[in-house]
Amino acid sequence: MTIASPEQATDLHALDVVKIDLAERSYPILIGQGESLWQQALTLLPKGTSAVIVTNETVAPLYSQALRQRLLAHYPRVLEVVLPDGEQYKNWETLNQVFDVLLAHAADRKTVLFALGGGVIGDMTGFAAASYMRGVPFVQVPTTLLAQVDSSVGGKTAINHPLGKNMIGAFYQPKLVVCDLDTLKTLPPAELSAGLGEVIKYGPIYDMAFFDWLEANVERLVAQDVDALRYAVRRSCEIKAAVVSADETESGLREILNFGHTFGHAIEAGKGYGAWLHGHAVAAGMVLASLLSTKLGYVQDAQFHPRLVTLLQRAGLPVQAPVLDTHNNAQRYLDLMRVDKKSQGGAIRFVVLKPAGKAVTEKVDDATVAELLNAHL
Amino acid sequence: MTIASPEQATDLHALDVVKIDLAERSYPILIGQGESLWQQALTLLPKGTSAVIVTNETVAPLYSQALRQRLLAHYPRVLEVVLPDGEQYKNWETLNQVFDVLLAHAADRKTVLFALGGGVIGDMTGFAAASYMRGVPFVQVPTTLLAQVDSSVGGKTAINHPLGKNMIGAFYQPKLVVCDLDTLKTLPPAELSAGLGEVIKYGPIYDMAFFDWLEANVERLVAQDVDALRYAVRRSCEIKAAVVSADETESGLREILNFGHTFGHAIEAGKGYGAWLHGHAVAAGMVLASLLSTKLGYVQDAQFHPRLVTLLQRAGLPVQAPVLDTHNNAQRYLDLMRVDKKSQGGAIRFVVLKPAGKAVTEKVDDATVAELLNAHL
Repeated sequence: MTIASPEQATDLHALDVVKIDLAERSYPILIGQGESLWQQALTLLPKGTSAVIVTNETVAPLYSQALRQRLLAHYPRVLEVVLPDGEQYKNWETLNQVFDVLLAHAADRKTVLFALGGGVIGDMTGFAAASYMRGVPFVQVPTTLLAQVDSSVGGKTAINHPLGKNMIGAFYQPKLVVCDLDTLKTLPPAELSAGLGEVIKYGPIYDMAFFDWLEANVERLVAQDVDALRYAVRRSCEIKAAVVSADETESGLREILNFGHTFGHAIEAGKGYGAWLHGHAVAAGMVLASLLSTKLGYVQDAQFHPRLVTLLQRAGLPVQAPVLDTHNNAQRYLDLMRVDKKSQGGAIRFVVLKPAGKAVTEKVDDATVAELLNAHL
Repeated sequence: MTIASPEQATDLHALDVVKIDLAERSYPILIGQGESLWQQALTLLPKGTSAVIVTNETVAPLYSQALRQRLLAHYPRVLEVVLPDGEQYKNWETLNQVFDVLLAHAADRKTVLFALGGGVIGDMTGFAAASYMRGVPFVQVPTTLLAQVDSSVGGKTAINHPLGKNMIGAFYQPKLVVCDLDTLKTLPPAELSAGLGEVIKYGPIYDMAFFDWLEANVERLVAQDVDALRYAVRRSCEIKAAVVSADETESGLREILNFGHTFGHAIEAGKGYGAWLHGHAVAAGMVLASLLSTKLGYVQDAQFHPRLVTLLQRAGLPVQAPVLDTHNNAQRYLDLMRVDKKSQGGAIRFVVLKPAGKAVTEKVDDATVAELLNAHL
């Protein structure tokens, strides 16, 4: 029952649909499995002269052929670009492979790109779609939990620069997001837990009732119970939709989705892209951001921090951030965090809980952050 | 009386202001000289933590220091990136030099980029601004006639790909365009005539009264009469503003601004970027596009084509397109034109006059185009 074998598929569940509400750039997220999901998805695809599946060498053998078969009924031509797999390839050289294929096949402005893969594929395909001929339509087909609950939704696209993660990119919305829960069955445990990190994030920043639900159900999620996953994906997408619909281009509210990410991006950059999975770095970063919120006096419930740490651990996630520099670790973190996109005029801005269940972005002085890092790493 | 010496400047003229009307992305184009221009411009600059002047090695020695001085009064920090000069450098490698500087200096989202130069600098700086941290504000300071009347207005930004011109880019509007007519005084004659090519374009596609005016005044423009230039820049910007305000992302009407450009882009790509100036290629392309319009029966005024050719010649522009392949020239043109952004499903679409003074975009079959090319080249 995967998108790899449409002919065998049967309907296990009805569809969930979450709407991203952005006026003329609005689009639906479909969450489901098998034929019922894809029958609905095919009715919502943008028209075009060609479809181009952008995927990676890990995902391609699992799902590309099935997607191609489905798309051939709707587009005169279906092309495929298979990129290397990994955060370390999220750069201009890899992106340019997409442009090379598009131009070599004289792909026109009515070409529709399909991002088939995880967060890296989604971010790169989205930026390729934003930039090719100044913009062609694209569809997200996220095959990892992290991409389904976070990166495929909301139109943030980017590539990395050696000096900073996601520094080159665009806000560019897909026309449709298709979350096929069956694809999560092939996900390695580390990738599943990485996605759970982003799922857990939505509790402290927006919805402590969801946090309670996660505490009651995290083992079902780790065991890939499909009903639990369906609910976790839907609730995550609902929260993300509410935040993104209120602030598409991250001029304010949307920044709260970056809870744990300022520390997390420093971990990823400091260890070298690909060494830490994004979701793992964010988990360790959330622990630090929670400690920072407590240190600033914003979270007075003494139970919250241990609950967060325990939940992350039950989800299989790291809760201890690494030392990045044995001589001057705090300074190394600060230097890496200063290029964060939320920084303003040299001051680092952190997403902090105020209190648990609600998040805000604030400047925090270097000395306070250094004290925190020195005390806990 | 150039922007290079603010302290010596006196006011020769009042300001002309043309408004680009795009809802929350609206912005003014200021056209003038000296202190009065810059005093007004400084009141309209976006706020920011840094200003970054992006220019090239030809323009930098002429105008960069003066602009830096003016900006230092308004921004805590002013940086400069000097790129190599020429269409052949309008690529990812050069663009990345801008990102390297921005990240090396920890430039944040409140950084304002200033494009100081011609069309290549404007297009690359605009794309850098569109992509850096998913978008920072930018200001166009066009120093060539071509950039003042065309490329700096309307938010088309791009870099070239070896397989096609302007294939990678974004629609991204500047916050302000500052056209300092004094900068045209340092323009080499070939660059001036290249700009006149785009000025002349506005007549056949939109306003034959302007075409009449150009016939009466082209020698004044070639001699750099500042009053004539001021009127030509203003009228060109007015027409471009009307077209762009009606169709920001080139889904229809805006394509008419590409009159002569389909043939022109083939000339530029076929001869190698930089071998033909863009405005020269467009001039020779307009001659072919005019012949095509006549051949299709859309322009029945027998006087129009010779008038166009004569006006282009008086402006110092080439009117004969080059042979790109001695064995199969028409096919070579067709192959190069098929990757044009207006193409759909393999069919090449041309901007044709219907009649002179009004333009439309139409598919034209290969055989008709080949016949035309074989008859005239």
